[in-house]
Amino acid sequence: MHIVAIGGSDAGISAALRAREVDPGVEFTVVCADAYPNFSICGIPYYVSGEVTHWRNLAHRTYADLEAAGMRLRLDTTARRIDAGARKLIVTGAGGADDVISYDELIIGTGARPARPPIAGLDALGPADGVHLLHSMDDTFAVMRTLEEAAPASAVIVGAGYIGVEMAEALSARGLAVTQVEQLPEVLPTVDPELGTLVRAQLEDHGVTVRPGTTVREIARADAGAPGPLRVTAGTADGDPVTVHAGLVLVVTGVRPETALAVSAGARLGARGAIAVDKAMRAGIPGVFAAGDCVITHHRLLGETYLPLGTTAHKQGRIAGENATGRGQREFAGSLGTQVVKVFDHAAARTGLKDTEARAAGFDPVTVAFEADDHKAYYPGSHRIAMRFTGDRDTRRLLGVQLFGHKHAEVAKRIDIAATAIFCGMTVDDVSDLDLSYTPPLGSPWDAIQMGAQAWARQAHSPASH
Amino acid sequence: MHIVAIGGSDAGISAALRAREVDPGVEFTVVCADAYPNFSICGIPYYVSGEVTHWRNLAHRTYADLEAAGMRLRLDTTARRIDAGARKLIVTGAGGADDVISYDELIIGTGARPARPPIAGLDALGPADGVHLLHSMDDTFAVMRTLEEAAPASAVIVGAGYIGVEMAEALSARGLAVTQVEQLPEVLPTVDPELGTLVRAQLEDHGVTVRPGTTVREIARADAGAPGPLRVTAGTADGDPVTVHAGLVLVVTGVRPETALAVSAGARLGARGAIAVDKAMRAGIPGVFAAGDCVITHHRLLGETYLPLGTTAHKQGRIAGENATGRGQREFAGSLGTQVVKVFDHAAARTGLKDTEARAAGFDPVTVAFEADDHKAYYPGSHRIAMRFTGDRDTRRLLGVQLFGHKHAEVAKRIDIAATAIFCGMTVDDVSDLDLSYTPPLGSPWDAIQMGAQAWARQAHSPASH
Repeated sequence: MHIVAIGGSDAGISAALRAREVDPGVEFTVVCADAYPNFSICGIPYYVSGEVTHWRNLAHRTYADLEAAGMRLRLDTTARRIDAGARKLIVTGAGGADDVISYDELIIGTGARPARPPIAGLDALGPADGVHLLHSMDDTFAVMRTLEEAAPASAVIVGAGYIGVEMAEALSARGLAVTQVEQLPEVLPTVDPELGTLVRAQLEDHGVTVRPGTTVREIARADAGAPGPLRVTAGTADGDPVTVHAGLVLVVTGVRPETALAVSAGARLGARGAIAVDKAMRAGIPGVFAAGDCVITHHRLLGETYLPLGTTAHKQGRIAGENATGRGQREFAGSLGTQVVKVFDHAAARTGLKDTEARAAGFDPVTVAFEADDHKAYYPGSHRIAMRFTGDRDTRRLLGVQLFGHKHAEVAKRIDIAATAIFCGMTVDDVSDLDLSYTPPLGSPWDAIQMGAQAWARQAHSPASH
Repeated sequence: MHIVAIGGSDAGISAALRAREVDPGVEFTVVCADAYPNFSICGIPYYVSGEVTHWRNLAHRTYADLEAAGMRLRLDTTARRIDAGARKLIVTGAGGADDVISYDELIIGTGARPARPPIAGLDALGPADGVHLLHSMDDTFAVMRTLEEAAPASAVIVGAGYIGVEMAEALSARGLAVTQVEQLPEVLPTVDPELGTLVRAQLEDHGVTVRPGTTVREIARADAGAPGPLRVTAGTADGDPVTVHAGLVLVVTGVRPETALAVSAGARLGARGAIAVDKAMRAGIPGVFAAGDCVITHHRLLGETYLPLGTTAHKQGRIAGENATGRGQREFAGSLGTQVVKVFDHAAARTGLKDTEARAAGFDPVTVAFEADDHKAYYPGSHRIAMRFTGDRDTRRLLGVQLFGHKHAEVAKRIDIAATAIFCGMTVDDVSDLDLSYTPPLGSPWDAIQMGAQAWARQAHSPASH
């Protein structure tokens, strides 16, 4: 049995590890388009900031680790075509020569590519000019070259999602003056504006100039004598023009699924143009699975959506790898869109649905804001946690939780308590029944999560509640 | 409607708060034997250590807060007798005069008293001699008097459970040379010895002399010229004598339920001599509920047991308060014995069952040890978490998790993820399906909890596993 994965990131490598664990006799080849298999893309901001001292440290596992786990790696090798009928994959190797790899089962893990928003000049300018997208290790090296060789004093970051916010921190840590531009009315639009405002305050408190509600129209080389070599022209929602000069422009406005290869092999596309897969991660073509950022996401509350995350790619890859061996019948249990981002000394986290998402999905949501201490305030070092609880009015089912607090307020693992509760279908009221841990330096007799749930329960009874 | 609670600690106050929330028209009286209603007994070690600067800060709520919540407090008032037929409670008030309080519903929250192990001299010596039990605020003031007036240079702590370990840290922080004596073979016997050993190492690294497997036989006044005013005589399991001198001896070897009043009113006793209650917290006498450390504990995996914890008392009190109003039909969902303790810069936590407990309860447990990082090791400040996962061999149900790690490794809330999973009846394999949060500074694509679960799943297949 020979299984081949296209893609050496989370999905492909997780598939290989799991397949070899389930069936140590299976042969597994991973076709990797670059020379960086199993790299932690989520760690890139911390390499740029200097906190990770060498890019090699971003590897989840070394090449030797991966080989020791029994997989064969073909680096700098591009998958060209899938002959699903003959179960063959045509690739172009590092030397430029084509090659044919026969497989019994194939796992497509081609991932995503960065979105290119409609900004004039974006196609004409590139890394040599200080204009960057950021998705791969090669992108990372290009950013580092600009930082080290051009030594820009300032940067514009287009986009204030997770990576944008992390890169604002990273570039600030390197001493650049950062302007962050976000088209939507508030930063980090994956959380409600009330928490996004707190994230923005962190950015601003650390010297980042934040321009929400502002759309970038053009990136161009600046005139001689301008305050920076690049000129970014934008406009507010009210039509007011905004011009910022900088030495580096980073465009981080999300990703699009990379599906061309799968489509040419006959795969059907689903939500947001991602590869349609069933919960067993089968792509609808005999012998072909797909997983990771290139496929649709089964969401426990929304059904089919597209929500590319590293955690999800790991899970989907693991399931594809197990099922490809023929020894497993696992199904992806579904995402809840659980996410956390560190913003300087704080963290913002979410799981499940925001109010607007819940309403769009047909629920009748009630969202309640509450604040509680991470641990008993009489013990030194306590921090307030801002919370938003969303539950369904009639069924009282817990639909979503959002948290914002200090990075030592255990916000990340508190969101995971909520994620587990939502995963198991608990009501908001049930949360108070959970037997959670308590000691004054690390919690409260009712955990902050339970206090938030109780606040929801009180207010959800009130007719004035929203 | 007049509801009366006997006891002003977690159960009684939670009952009052909930009753008034459910029915703002209800009258609620809390009879409190001392002058410290709603004090955080769990916070006492942090007042003794000096981290909590005033004992009043240990109050969860002030007297004014409690009155504002609509309850009437009768302080320094001892409940003497329940006339359940006439629905009257006979009390002795602060001035020494008896009084009769009529009630419609009564909630017994008499709590527990500290165990008095069979140690010669324990009954004859007391706080004036520097020999202390520690359970109430009055006990706390007595300890502080010894510390401030006798200024002992050394202490012996008898018992190394949660409070013993916390007091070892507290007295060390005050500069005392602490010897901790534990009858069982390892400290913190609520976790497996493998983790208890790590807790002991923390104690020893911070200068505490730990003597596990050692039973204290006698406490006596030392001879003139001895290295301390008190002589503690003990013996190891092998029969070797151990003698330690100290200026303060603290006996903290658990608690016993305080049931005399309930028994005299006709209550039946259950596990470990605690008051038998149903899940609605009814004590089997018309109009009488009971909650907190004086009652049996319904455990989700063990059925009826006795497991007094502040978190449980809060939950039980809340349910008793709601049901007593006649407007609620809540049932206590059951404990999992979830606990966490900070030990200097580390924390030890548990939920569910240890291997020995699971076996005694009729499961066929497999327990697997594993270690993982709290977050990606490439990001600065990562810590290893030592884990023990216990699952049932055939059903693969998750039965228990134990964790030990740095206090910033989010051990407390990670045990709560496991507690939520166990609460919901998940298998160990299901844990990998949970959609948990990830960012490199705060986690991993598979959280440590999921890596531990996966290690269990691998080893549970092996016939050599235990």
